[in-house]
Formats: sequence, structure tokens, C-alpha cells
Amino acid sequence: MNFKMIWRIIAYILLIEIVLMLPGAVISLVRQEAEALLGFQISIGVILLVAGFLMVVTMRAKKTTFYAREGLVTTGLSWIMMSALGCLPFYISGAIPNYVDCLFEMVSGFTTTGSSILPEVESMAHGLLFWRSFSHWIGGMGVLVFLMAIVSIGNKNQGFTMHILRAESPGPAVGKMVPKMKETAKILYLIYIGLTVLNIVLLMLGGMNLFEASCTAFGTAGTGGFGIRNDSIASYSPYIQYVTVIFMFLFSVNFSIYYLLLLKKIKDAVTDEEFCVFWAIAAAAIIAICINVRPMYATMEETFRHTAFSVGTVMSTTGYATTDFDLWPSFSKAVLLFLMVFGACAGSTGGGMKIVRLILLWKSLRRNIHKSLHPSEVRSVLVNHRKIDEQILVNTNAYLIAYFAIILISVLLISLDGFDFETNFTAVIATFNNIGPGTNMVGPTCNFSMYSNFSKLVMIGDMLAGRLEIYPILILFSGSTWKRAR
Amino acid sequence: MNFKMIWRIIAYILLIEIVLMLPGAVISLVRQEAEALLGFQISIGVILLVAGFLMVVTMRAKKTTFYAREGLVTTGLSWIMMSALGCLPFYISGAIPNYVDCLFEMVSGFTTTGSSILPEVESMAHGLLFWRSFSHWIGGMGVLVFLMAIVSIGNKNQGFTMHILRAESPGPAVGKMVPKMKETAKILYLIYIGLTVLNIVLLMLGGMNLFEASCTAFGTAGTGGFGIRNDSIASYSPYIQYVTVIFMFLFSVNFSIYYLLLLKKIKDAVTDEEFCVFWAIAAAAIIAICINVRPMYATMEETFRHTAFSVGTVMSTTGYATTDFDLWPSFSKAVLLFLMVFGACAGSTGGGMKIVRLILLWKSLRRNIHKSLHPSEVRSVLVNHRKIDEQILVNTNAYLIAYFAIILISVLLISLDGFDFETNFTAVIATFNNIGPGTNMVGPTCNFSMYSNFSKLVMIGDMLAGRLEIYPILILFSGSTWKRAR
Repeated sequence: MNFKMIWRIIAYILLIEIVLMLPGAVISLVRQEAEALLGFQISIGVILLVAGFLMVVTMRAKKTTFYAREGLVTTGLSWIMMSALGCLPFYISGAIPNYVDCLFEMVSGFTTTGSSILPEVESMAHGLLFWRSFSHWIGGMGVLVFLMAIVSIGNKNQGFTMHILRAESPGPAVGKMVPKMKETAKILYLIYIGLTVLNIVLLMLGGMNLFEASCTAFGTAGTGGFGIRNDSIASYSPYIQYVTVIFMFLFSVNFSIYYLLLLKKIKDAVTDEEFCVFWAIAAAAIIAICINVRPMYATMEETFRHTAFSVGTVMSTTGYATTDFDLWPSFSKAVLLFLMVFGACAGSTGGGMKIVRLILLWKSLRRNIHKSLHPSEVRSVLVNHRKIDEQILVNTNAYLIAYFAIILISVLLISLDGFDFETNFTAVIATFNNIGPGTNMVGPTCNFSMYSNFSKLVMIGDMLAGRLEIYPILILFSGSTWKRAR
Repeated sequence: MNFKMIWRIIAYILLIEIVLMLPGAVISLVRQEAEALLGFQISIGVILLVAGFLMVVTMRAKKTTFYAREGLVTTGLSWIMMSALGCLPFYISGAIPNYVDCLFEMVSGFTTTGSSILPEVESMAHGLLFWRSFSHWIGGMGVLVFLMAIVSIGNKNQGFTMHILRAESPGPAVGKMVPKMKETAKILYLIYIGLTVLNIVLLMLGGMNLFEASCTAFGTAGTGGFGIRNDSIASYSPYIQYVTVIFMFLFSVNFSIYYLLLLKKIKDAVTDEEFCVFWAIAAAAIIAICINVRPMYATMEETFRHTAFSVGTVMSTTGYATTDFDLWPSFSKAVLLFLMVFGACAGSTGGGMKIVRLILLWKSLRRNIHKSLHPSEVRSVLVNHRKIDEQILVNTNAYLIAYFAIILISVLLISLDGFDFETNFTAVIATFNNIGPGTNMVGPTCNFSMYSNFSKLVMIGDMLAGRLEIYPILILFSGSTWKRAR
């Protein structure tokens, strides 16, 4: 393992984090939020020290030999370091007195989960609120991808960029949009920035000021869900709610679809299997829930708006709320719970298992049933008329195993706190799938503060494992990762 | 598809079912239970008619061409026919007025689930109680296996017996104990009968009469769980409870272990990986729960007894109860819930995913993690030092996908009845894994009668799919199964 190189990249990441903290610090400066400003100043100082120290000790890092495992370890470690240091402003300013709570909030931000330990947010300094929402936007696309897009550490071997991109991007495999991975990263970020700006402008047309619109758009773009009002999006106008639900869905779609649209390959875009299945599931869920919850709302429009918003918030794994779906009938709650597990499309900023994995699992199941009826026939699994490599199917199955193993172990560990099964189960589902709220005691109107520090640490691990799709976190626990380099 | 042959085998199965009904009928005759006796008489008449009709129309069935798919379809259809006709005594005698309830109770019996729609059983006729408990014993080993052991329909092609045995036996693959499958089936049944008789004798030594001891032993041997008292095993002496827990564990073990012991291959038996993992999980669960529930019971002995019994009842998927584990702290309930999913060993009468599948899944996950770190190395998955065929790993993964898909769809469908999530979720887990009681509204002291007929039909499908390990039921829903024979 090339640890020197890994720590050197983490030093770069921390320097980028300092730059990303500046807008929040400036807001605190302008609004004369003394404690928050001090929090930012000391935090930036600490991060600078750590980054400087890492730069010095990794002076002679060899740029060669960077394999998949280095990509995974770099990704896992840099997300942990970014969160552990990025949460310092909350701690130092005294806004969140318990460090584990700060870490929970920050990891929830970067992983675009949106689960919070705060009972209310409106009293928080604007600078800190901005940093909290901005962390969703940063984490949505991934800061390592950003690093790839702007610098050229690993230019010498293409593998470097690819391994990082693979490890940080959601979905079973990163399709190369263009031959050079660095260019792919740039295109992804440009689409991301463009859509975010459009979202901000549309929200401002609905009457929000720039601060409100930016924070709300960051939460939507990263499919995070941290709000700046205690009732999330519920007290905003229907226009704002519709804009938000549309963008939640837009950010749940594989960004390569937008690239295809930019290239005017419209037929390829709209016939993409994952794209079609995603919309089919969304439409079916909205219709089923609309029928189920119709008696709870006055008008058809209101029923549709709250249903579409809840389906959007759950499928995109955002976590904004306009209504307390915990009060819905159990059928609608069950539908939402399963949509939470399904999640968004691969290559989006959304979480969950990803629709393409569902498609792969479904098709390999069908192939297996066919084989049990006709043992001698050999069939390939096709997605978008292309043969899927068997190794991707094997990886997808392994992902499914790890997915359920992590849910199982996490629920067991946090149930030591003694809360009921629904609360524990949905708390794990909501954090591991990077959604935000669960049901019952962690429902849309509640928060995660009642859990013990130990349970919060378990869920911090779940959020990271969910965002980074398990392996970058899992292999940090593997003994062979830490063995002396060969 | 060789449908003529399939229906002919089903006719044989129905004839066997008539013979198996006779003991219950005789008990009703001796005890002068007029309604129950009439129920048995009419039912036997109806089954005889159906079997006779099937025999006549399948006179010219060709005995050749019997492939895996015919094995699967035969198994699925004969279990459905056996249940649909086997439940008639309950219906005709008026003991259970709703036919869907009768079917639920019968399927719960044959699949060794033990979930009941009856609020109390002590008022039921002894003949019917006997038939209800006996159905566990019949379903535990499988009636098709029994057919294989006594008759010689398919002697001409070995494949026939093997396909049936594969389809009906629990676990990813049937190991051939001896070269001839028919001999294997005989050995299995002899071990089964031997252990059951031993259980009856030990229960009678504890003061039970022959009727009580037989019914209780049938529920234990089939890992079913229908009791003849309203409080299950709770009001029996600690001796009876200990005998029952020991036999629940004994019937959860792969029967090939007993064959190895009979052959004095003791080292092979006790070093079997599934055997060791099974006991390790049981021991860990008992210790963890003992610590967790210790304050709820007066003595250490009582704590241990109730814990061991609950772990045994859940791991063996039996469903007997000595205590209401629904009142336990949430950690203990979570442990039990996961043990429900794990289930017993392959090749036993228990249900669930089977421990050997867990081992296979765990090992293929580990291999996948290793491969992501060292892409060039090729590794095999070993169980008991033998290389596992890749096709078995593929099948195991497909099983996992189907497993979760069925749970998901079932929970969605039954949540239309409006009960809470924990009730619906554990109801599906309890029926699909053939356990019996879940938690909350379907806990050990409750029953399934509050569900609608539609939900009961869903759970009937789950019980069958769980007992037959999904495929024999799943392919009955596949269009290509019903296409005209080629």
C-alpha cells in the first residue's frame, strides 16, 4: 500500500476543504456572528496545521503504483478526515456542544444524508447553516472527483484518476463518457454547477433571498436534505415545493443522461433502461400513495403535491419534507420504506442501492430461474442491449450481501439503546441509504439526538459506507489493508 | 412439460395423504367426535374421487423425459393440492368456518410453519388436533421424499428421484449420502422416525400421555410448532421444556451428520463447517440474550431455560413458546428476528435461509473484497475444504435476491390491511421462514386471524415458497411453465 501518496492526497483534500469553508466564514463575518466566526477561524487554522504536517511527512511520496486498493483507501480515509476536521466550526463555536454530535451532523452533511441531531435550526448562526447546507453540495458530487477535475497529481498513470472516480462515484460501474477520466470529471461538475445555479434562480423567482435559495438548492442538488427552517419545506409556497420536487428528481438521474442530451443523443437518453425504470417506479408509487392518502388532504392538488414530494424526497434520498409521512397509512409508509432502499440512479448524487443494481439483480434472478428450467441454455444479462460483464454481476451480488449484513449488524448494535424496532430499523435504513428521516421516533418531524454516542458512531459508519458504496469503508476494517507494503 | 406424468404423481401423493389421515380419523372414532369424524370421512371420499379421476386421465403417461423443471412443478403442485384437500376436515367438521383460514392452517402445518389463525386450540376435537400436528411431521421431511422411499415410479431414470429430492429438500444442494437417491431417501426417513420415537418416549417419561407426547414430538420433529395447549409449552414442566429444546436443536441439524455418526465418522461430523457455525451462533445468541433479559426472571436457571428455548424455537424455526419474547428488550427481539432469517441447517426439517447459505454468502463476499484489493488473484470458495462449484454460488445469490424480493412484495401487499410495520414485517418473516410467531400483533401469545383473506393468501404463498425454497412455487407463476409441451 502506497500510504505516503495516500496521505499526500488527503493533504490536498484538506486544503480544498479550507477554501470551501471560506464562504461560510465570510457570511459569519458580514453578519457579525462572533462565536461562529471564531469557530471558522480556529478550525481553518487547525486544518492548515494538519495539512501542512501531512505535506511535510509525505514530501518524498512516489507517484507510481496506485492500484484499486489505494483508490479505495484514499477515498475512505479522506472522507473520514474531511468530516472529523470539517465539523470543528460547530464544536468550537459551541453551536453543538458534543463532538460526536458535531461529527454526526458533518458526516450527515458530506454523505448527503440529512439526518440531524438538532431539534431546531433557526437559532443557528447563518455562517454555520451555510456550511452545513454547502457540505451536501460538496459531498453530492464528491470532493475527490473535484480534485481530479482541477489538479493533475496522477497524470502519469490514468489508473489513478479512474480508481478514485470509481471509488467515490455512486453505482456499480462508472461509464466513461469520454476517453479521459479527468475530462469526465470536469463534465460532471459542469452539469452539476449548471443545474444548481438554475435551481437557485428558480427558487429566487419564488421569493427566496439568495441565502435561502442557495442553502435549499445545495440540499436539493446533493440530495441531502438539511433545511434552514424547522419545518423543512412545509411552510414555503406550493411553487417552491414544486420547484424543489422537480429538482430532487432531476438530481436523482444519472448525469450521463444530461451529457447525452447535451450531445443531442435524445433517443439514447430517453430509452436508457435505468432512466425508464426509475420513472416507472416513481409514477407507480405516486399513483398508489395518492389513492391511499387521498382522504387525508382537502384537495386533489394538495394530495398530489405531498405525495410527489414524499416520493421524490425518498427516491432521491434527499429528506426534505412538506408533510409528516409518518402519519400516513401503513401501506404508504411501506411503499416509502422500500423506495428508500431502492434509491436513485447510479451516477447521480442520490443514495440507496441504485435502480441499475435492482435491474441487474432482477435480470440475474430471471436468468437463474430460466436456467433451472432449461439447464443447458447459456444466457447473458443485457442492459441497454449490451452484454453485462459477469464480474459486474458478481460484484452486484456481493454488494447485496454486504448491504444486508451491514443493516443487520447496525440494527443489532443500535437496538442496545432500547428503542423500538421500527425506529431502529428505519434509522439504519435512513442513514445507510443517505436519506435523512425514518419513521416513528426518527420520523420527518423528529431527530436522532436521543441515541447514545455509540449508536451515533455506528450510524456515522453507516452513512459513510452508504455514500461510498461500502467497500472504501469496509476495507479500512480489513487487516490486510494495514499490512506493511510489499 | 410432461404434465400427464406430473398429475399421475400427484394422484399417488393424494392416495398417501388418505393413508396419513387415517390415524386422526381413528382418534375421532374412538373419542366419539361426531363432527370431526364426519369431516374426515367426507374429506377422504373427496380426495379419493380426485385421485381416482387423476389416475384415469393420466393412464397413458409416458414415464420418460422427466427433467429438473418437471421436478420443480411436481413439487409445487403436489404441495398445493395436498394442502387444498388436506384442510377439508377442518372445514367440513365446522371447526374452522372460513375455507381460507382452513387452508392457512393446513399450509402452516405442512410447511412446518406453525402460524395459526386459531385464538385457542383446547376446545378442538382430538382427531383434528392430531391431524394438525401430524401435518408438521409429514411436511418436515416431505411427502414426495416419502413417495421416493417406498415406490418405484421413476426407476427407469435416476434423474427423476434426484430432481424431486432436490426440489423438496431444504438447502442449496442435496449431498448424495449413498449413490442411489432412493436409498438416501430411506436413510433420511429412518433417522427421522428414530429421533421422533425417542422424543415421544422421553416426553412420556416426563408424564405426558401418548397423544400429548406424539403431537408435541411431531411439532418438534417437523420444527413446526402447533401446540395442543393454548399457552404452547409454557405450562409444562421444566423437564418437558428441556427435552423439547434439545430436540428442536437436534432436528435443526443436517441429517447427514447423523448418518456420519451412524457410520462412526465422528471427526467428519463434528468438524462440519455448517454444524460448527450453527452451534457458535446459537451459543453467542443465548449468552447475549441471557445477559440482556436476566433482570426479567427470578433465577439464573429460569433465564437460561427461557433464553435457550426461545433461541432454539427461532433457529429451528419451530415456534413453540415458553415465554412471551415480545415483552423482551428490543436488543433481544432484534437478535431473535435475525436468527429467524438465518434459520436452521440445510438438510434438516428447519426453515429460514439455512446456515450453509450464510456461510456461502459470507465467503463469496470475502472473496469479492479480496479481489477488489488484489484484482489479479483467482480464489475459490471452500466449504469443508472442498471447492464449491461456481453454479452453487450463483444459485445462492439468486436465492438471496428472490428471498428479499418476496419479503418486500409480501410486506407491501399485507400492509394494505393497515396494521403497523413491525406486525406486517415480522408476520412475513415468520411465515416465509416457516417459524410461526412474529412480534407485536403476531407475537407468541397472538395469532394471524385479524388479517384479511387476501393477506392470508399472500402468507400461504410465502409459507409454501419458504418451505420449498422459492423455486418450485415461483416457477408456477412463470408463463413458460404452462406453454404447450414441445
